[in-house]
Amino acid sequence: MPRYKAIVSYDGTNYIGWQKQPDGMTIQEKIETVMEKITHTRINVTASGRTDAKVHALGQVFHFDSDFNLTAPMWKVALNGHLPKDIHIQSVKEVREDFHSRFHAVKKRYDYRINLGEYDVFTRNFAFQCYYSLDVEKMKEAASLFLGEHDFTTFCASPLSTHPDQVRTITHLEFVQEGNFLRIIYEGNGFLRYMVRMLTGTLIEVGRGRLSKEEVQKMLEAKDKTACRFNAKPQGLFLVEVFYEPGWEIENR
Amino acid sequence: MPRYKAIVSYDGTNYIGWQKQPDGMTIQEKIETVMEKITHTRINVTASGRTDAKVHALGQVFHFDSDFNLTAPMWKVALNGHLPKDIHIQSVKEVREDFHSRFHAVKKRYDYRINLGEYDVFTRNFAFQCYYSLDVEKMKEAASLFLGEHDFTTFCASPLSTHPDQVRTITHLEFVQEGNFLRIIYEGNGFLRYMVRMLTGTLIEVGRGRLSKEEVQKMLEAKDKTACRFNAKPQGLFLVEVFYEPGWEIENR
Repeated sequence: MPRYKAIVSYDGTNYIGWQKQPDGMTIQEKIETVMEKITHTRINVTASGRTDAKVHALGQVFHFDSDFNLTAPMWKVALNGHLPKDIHIQSVKEVREDFHSRFHAVKKRYDYRINLGEYDVFTRNFAFQCYYSLDVEKMKEAASLFLGEHDFTTFCASPLSTHPDQVRTITHLEFVQEGNFLRIIYEGNGFLRYMVRMLTGTLIEVGRGRLSKEEVQKMLEAKDKTACRFNAKPQGLFLVEVFYEPGWEIENR
Repeated sequence: MPRYKAIVSYDGTNYIGWQKQPDGMTIQEKIETVMEKITHTRINVTASGRTDAKVHALGQVFHFDSDFNLTAPMWKVALNGHLPKDIHIQSVKEVREDFHSRFHAVKKRYDYRINLGEYDVFTRNFAFQCYYSLDVEKMKEAASLFLGEHDFTTFCASPLSTHPDQVRTITHLEFVQEGNFLRIIYEGNGFLRYMVRMLTGTLIEVGRGRLSKEEVQKMLEAKDKTACRFNAKPQGLFLVEVFYEPGWEIENR
């Protein structure tokens, strides 16, 4: 059966996250419901990873299998025709049948946006509203501790049993200031549950002068789930892009 | 009784406009309700002009009278403490008792935002999603017709009887391209009902190649309410700033 790779953006404000759950609306559920409407069969979609309640995506990736008679470009049109206005399929491509959106992702990029200016009605759902001033230079120094391969147990919310391996590599960590907005860009080979928000929450504490670089280093080295109690708000977080090796896509079919 | 001038920003998505109406929620009603909650008296607020359903404001101005025992800065704090998250008071200043937010406005700026790129879930309520390509140079040429003093009867939705004088002066009209977004900036001494949206709708028709500059000139010269049937969507429109002569504000009280 043909396999398809889709890139989807969503405004997560009104959802309890990506992953299907018994109580509350999720993005996965919306997409699967629309697929059932189109094909009259139940299709499971598998994402590169979950996003939490109120977290946004510019380029989440999922895959699905279907022998329904639609070309990849027509899948995009059909899905967008039925999806609500806060979910939009950017592209659908046919891929090799052994492609897996989660297992084959080689890199992910997340952005965390902070509004350092006056409260803004237009970004209230798309940035963390910060009411204290931040020393961005101090944040950059502390952030350098996270670069490279580390055991991020301290900055992960999942129980150890479900994720025995908490070692991840952050390849790029950048601070971009645009007017009153501070954007922290994270790239790495994978991120644990809440990891970007916990790292960001920790960096904000550093920026406020309430944590030193040395204390952050001790937290990281502790590999202790109780060592970090900071978790930046979800509305500032965007899953920007999921990267794969080339060669998975099947052209002209 | 002291008079106050307030600057307010709002996301107009969930409102049927600024002005109080019997059916549906308005920004004016929200603000007056909050003032009643604070002071236990009914206070009327008067804006520089109405905005329509789904139209936004970065800097709408209104004035109100109250002898309630609050300083201007405390008025700001009290109002923002009770207002919903899509309305935010930027500032409150005490002004001379003869100040009037509408009659004394000497200039207004409106921006109209157009998304020329792929549909974007994050700007769906804050820009007009344009699915055809626009010839911006042609739009600029036609827009030059609107500069200066004109009778804008053609580009006004109100019945003549309520606005006998339809002469307005546009002092500045600018096109700014930022990535996939086109922003049209209008400045003038006043704007009639729907005027910015009707001018923009007409310019979009020019950009699509469906109207020539000569046809626009004829429309303007016709001074005929039936000559323009274009009205750009409200979600692209922002009231950015209302300008006054200096000297109205009372310092240090």
